[in-house]
Amino acid sequence: MIRHGLKAPELVASVWLNTPEPLVLDNLRGRVVVLYAFQMLCPGCASHGLPQATAIHELYLRDEVQVIGLHTVFEHHSVMTLDALKAFVHEYRLTFPITVDQPSESGPIPVTMQKLNLQGTPSLVLIDKAGTIRLTHFGRLSDMQVGNMIAQLLMEELGSQDSTDRADGAEPQTDGQCGDEGCSL
Amino acid sequence: MIRHGLKAPELVASVWLNTPEPLVLDNLRGRVVVLYAFQMLCPGCASHGLPQATAIHELYLRDEVQVIGLHTVFEHHSVMTLDALKAFVHEYRLTFPITVDQPSESGPIPVTMQKLNLQGTPSLVLIDKAGTIRLTHFGRLSDMQVGNMIAQLLMEELGSQDSTDRADGAEPQTDGQCGDEGCSL
Amino acid sequence: MIRHGLKAPELVASVWLNTPEPLVLDNLRGRVVVLYAFQMLCPGCASHGLPQATAIHELYLRDEVQVIGLHTVFEHHSVMTLDALKAFVHEYRLTFPITVDQPSESGPIPVTMQKLNLQGTPSLVLIDKAGTIRLTHFGRLSDMQVGNMIAQLLMEELGSQDSTDRADGAEPQTDGQCGDEGCSL
Amino acid sequence: MIRHGLKAPELVASVWLNTPEPLVLDNLRGRVVVLYAFQMLCPGCASHGLPQATAIHELYLRDEVQVIGLHTVFEHHSVMTLDALKAFVHEYRLTFPITVDQPSESGPIPVTMQKLNLQGTPSLVLIDKAGTIRLTHFGRLSDMQVGNMIAQLLMEELGSQDSTDRADGAEPQTDGQCGDEGCSL
Repeated sequence: MIRHGLKAPELVASVWLNTPEPLVLDNLRGRVVVLYAFQMLCPGCASHGLPQATAIHELYLRDEVQVIGLHTVFEHHSVMTLDALKAFVHEYRLTFPITVDQPSESGPIPVTMQKLNLQGTPSLVLIDKAGTIRLTHFGRLSDMQVGNMIAQLLMEELGSQDSTDRADGAEPQTDGQCGDEGCSL
Repeated sequence: MIRHGLKAPELVASVWLNTPEPLVLDNLRGRVVVLYAFQMLCPGCASHGLPQATAIHELYLRDEVQVIGLHTVFEHHSVMTLDALKAFVHEYRLTFPITVDQPSESGPIPVTMQKLNLQGTPSLVLIDKAGTIRLTHFGRLSDMQVGNMIAQLLMEELGSQDSTDRADGAEPQTDGQCGDEGCSL
Repeated sequence: MIRHGLKAPELVASVWLNTPEPLVLDNLRGRVVVLYAFQMLCPGCASHGLPQATAIHELYLRDEVQVIGLHTVFEHHSVMTLDALKAFVHEYRLTFPITVDQPSESGPIPVTMQKLNLQGTPSLVLIDKAGTIRLTHFGRLSDMQVGNMIAQLLMEELGSQDSTDRADGAEPQTDGQCGDEGCSL
Repeated sequence: MIRHGLKAPELVASVWLNTPEPLVLDNLRGRVVVLYAFQMLCPGCASHGLPQATAIHELYLRDEVQVIGLHTVFEHHSVMTLDALKAFVHEYRLTFPITVDQPSESGPIPVTMQKLNLQGTPSLVLIDKAGTIRLTHFGRLSDMQVGNMIAQLLMEELGSQDSTDRADGAEPQTDGQCGDEGCSL
């Protein structure tokens, strides 16, 4: 179920909430990183994506699994500002580290979201202990599937995976649409 | 269960969404008016208040029951702007008429919210065919209770109610807090 | 939404749970009677029918609304016995009066279920203060709809309704099938 | 989170549903076995235990994870018969193999339930590829926890675990009580 993949690109993000220090993926080797891309005005993010991210954050030990929320604004840029995000994070009581994906100069899709080739929000990105992307999923995965995949990555010895290139190089589109499962590009 | 009360004060609101014309309570005599006060960044509003408002909007005939969403921003004023509300209404697919409560010049609580003496969001206000407030409720009421109360008001003949003054004149407080049920003042 | 109908036939049932005395519909004039037909092994009854019956039982005053559970066994007769029902009622903590529809001598469908022309379980039957059937519904109705309809019946003055004959005289079939909504004949 | 334990005792059960052949734990070496103890009249089993068992059954490959339902009747013995169970399994559309724990000659608790020292229903028992009990849990575990634990067991090499004795030898009690989470002894 988990796809082998490329080395995860570093997050292009300067602002962080819920952490005293910015997180750097390169410094998280040895931990499984759960990167949860969301938008504060995405209904599917509020109803199931962020609750799932919180459940992961609460179930696992911090030095084994690092949850990171990535605010990937690809629509309604003028209102999903940093201040708005701070209010959202406060009211929804999110406690895991959250950062803001850097806006692109050439289009609506922010930089890290482009690098990760995400199709919308919410998207779950699983990065193994060696820093390799093992899964990117747009929409909803069951909690059982997610728990299963994280455990698989936790059991791996650091360095035991050989990365293989991802074959799918589909270009993301930019006409956003929000449905029950999430907001797609 | 339904308290008799005062004549509903007119809404102090200039901007309207989802309606070609502003709604005036005085023009809605003969209909039951369901006024649903909410804030776009209130978790309880997103999870149960607004879905309940939508269910009312879908169950009843428009010329019998008029649902009105009232955006009563009493915290995070700088980010819950009109543009942000428009994006929220679009993404959450709200289709009933929604208006923005006028900010107060003297404090964080907007004007209509003050007049209605609401304790937070979400709050449900039921106004009978004669324009009298019959219930204000902060937090969650079951769908069965709400359906029951609206039907009671629908069965009344216009003009058959005698209004009595509300005794409780408690002043609202302004230190907001959001919980499972909603955001209180 | 509520259909006018025939006078409700008396329940043909001898065993009662959760009541010191058998209930007789004729003695309940002046109350709205909510008759909830169910089978203990019907998944839709356990997941939403009986919880809705319980919600009605808890919301309304006993001398205004009388909830009655009617165990209408039309399949698996040998295992949905009175003793099994007693265990079910105990474990599911049902507290409203429940009775057992009398088995038919000529087929699988019990007597009262036949008289009421019910299509399966769960089925909701609303009887007004005058003893007239005003609604029979197989499957799921929202709590808001049910609260709305009961309130309508409560507001009626006793004797203000004129009964009209039901036009649909469809014969029930006996090949049961259980789905998400309930078990049909 | 997963406790190391004793070798799982063989199931003492003669009747099987949903399988052409009885299952023998000794023949399942190499697979993770998920043993789900339930009673058909236990509300918590119907609402979350059996749906979780079904989710496991559907998520994993059959030759990797074997789900077994164990009908451990410890109360209402006269009505939770084999025929009643068959009707229940049919109506609730359970498709994984299910067996009936053998009644005890000396008390209400059936034989396998005693051997496993289970505290009530639903109970989840996880048995590793080597046949060792790694977890017994009465009540509700989140799907994420269960998915995580099964994955851990799947990743283990057969024979890599060393069994250690379980220290807790508490005697089960027999005064059953059903609550939101399940039915306890």
